[in-house]
Amino acid sequence: MDRLEKIIKAHPRQSNMDLQAMLDCVNACFECSQICTVCADACLGEEHIQPLIRCIRLNQDCADICATTGRMLVRLNCPDWAIIRSQLQACTAACHKCGNECELHAQMHEHCKICLEACREAEATLKDLLVTQLEAVS
Amino acid sequence: MDRLEKIIKAHPRQSNMDLQAMLDCVNACFECSQICTVCADACLGEEHIQPLIRCIRLNQDCADICATTGRMLVRLNCPDWAIIRSQLQACTAACHKCGNECELHAQMHEHCKICLEACREAEATLKDLLVTQLEAVS
Amino acid sequence: MDRLEKIIKAHPRQSNMDLQAMLDCVNACFECSQICTVCADACLGEEHIQPLIRCIRLNQDCADICATTGRMLVRLNCPDWAIIRSQLQACTAACHKCGNECELHAQMHEHCKICLEACREAEATLKDLLVTQLEAVS
Amino acid sequence: MDRLEKIIKAHPRQSNMDLQAMLDCVNACFECSQICTVCADACLGEEHIQPLIRCIRLNQDCADICATTGRMLVRLNCPDWAIIRSQLQACTAACHKCGNECELHAQMHEHCKICLEACREAEATLKDLLVTQLEAVS
Repeated sequence: MDRLEKIIKAHPRQSNMDLQAMLDCVNACFECSQICTVCADACLGEEHIQPLIRCIRLNQDCADICATTGRMLVRLNCPDWAIIRSQLQACTAACHKCGNECELHAQMHEHCKICLEACREAEATLKDLLVTQLEAVS
Repeated sequence: MDRLEKIIKAHPRQSNMDLQAMLDCVNACFECSQICTVCADACLGEEHIQPLIRCIRLNQDCADICATTGRMLVRLNCPDWAIIRSQLQACTAACHKCGNECELHAQMHEHCKICLEACREAEATLKDLLVTQLEAVS
Repeated sequence: MDRLEKIIKAHPRQSNMDLQAMLDCVNACFECSQICTVCADACLGEEHIQPLIRCIRLNQDCADICATTGRMLVRLNCPDWAIIRSQLQACTAACHKCGNECELHAQMHEHCKICLEACREAEATLKDLLVTQLEAVS
Repeated sequence: MDRLEKIIKAHPRQSNMDLQAMLDCVNACFECSQICTVCADACLGEEHIQPLIRCIRLNQDCADICATTGRMLVRLNCPDWAIIRSQLQACTAACHKCGNECELHAQMHEHCKICLEACREAEATLKDLLVTQLEAVS
């Protein structure tokens, strides 16, 4: 059991969401935020930047959105499910579109390939939370 | 003309959105993020915190979401309108619900009254951008 | 009196720092964070990006550091002056170096000229707070 | 080898810092940021909040500072060592003081005990980077 799981279990308020589904999503969002930050910077370090401008831009948006979403999900006091659902949907859109853009460069740039994987994983955990958990709690 | 307007005008890419509507929304989002950060901290400094827990939580979410939304709006390279629309909708929801919560405490706490105003103003500029601008550009 | 000043005055805890010096610094840090975010994106939109890579990188660091510093300064409960002083020093270094880099491009790029002004203003308010206020409170 | 290590290795620019020392610090900073976010929220959910106000405040500062520091460390283009050193020092101070505060509540609150561990680990990796790596590169 890692530190995040332990501290969530030690929180005096518990979520109505399934703990494992929530933790998977939180971990995937925080990881996607970090990986997108690196991918934007790695694109910026390439010799031919022009074809990567859209990738950098989506990486930056996705990094910010995933960080905000991850922080919201670990706050367990008085959740407002309308805000959470809406932010999860925005995060799903960001991961989906950023993943699509990275896919275009995955054969040429290993960092885009790794970022594509992080985006797809985050998108999957977000959709799982939206479909299986937020129906029940709201 | 303030510094933000000047630097946006000096950007080599220009937005398809109406400049004034976009600037109004950016300024309102960044201000709402700051005011919510202060309101959360002011609530935490009150003698009777328990009735303010939901307010603190929504302030924190709204502060993070508004900051992320403001940063996205000032990036003018290769915008993805699906992501932007979705994030503007999440931000609208956050400002609406946070404003509603602050309204409950506005008579007792001046900081909640000021935060209510910032939330309502941000919500109005976000809705304006969603209705009048994002129809056209996407 | 703007909204930030009003809500700071409505906070149940008051700072030991001079209110105007603190507000000037908060406003300058938040503005510098926004202007640096735009400058990084504007540099990325230029035809010749290679000479601007260092500028983009310092813009990104300075934007993150200024946002964090601004958020810390508006929290008035239980300040820890050792942390605050240290973060103000890091922010001063970031504004100084980012301003120097923007100065190199200010004649060619108007956005770098505007960013230079924002960095210098933030640096001046940070130094003022460090010299005149943090001596007294710590 | 995890995703962060893989994408850092795929970056076209490589750091002058020892890779493992840098990764350890990045991972510890991002984890500390998350754990502090949860600890602040967990403290807010406790029945007796008043003794925890300082803990919440330091958790919030430490979460913001660690996130900013982690993001800076994974940017490998054109590092400015004066800014990085100064931000690492601010982060060390934040982790140290936040850890000390959590230590006071560690026997009563499991979440503070876990947060104390995360702060101490981050502090150790930051000091290691400052002492063994930043002497060499600057």
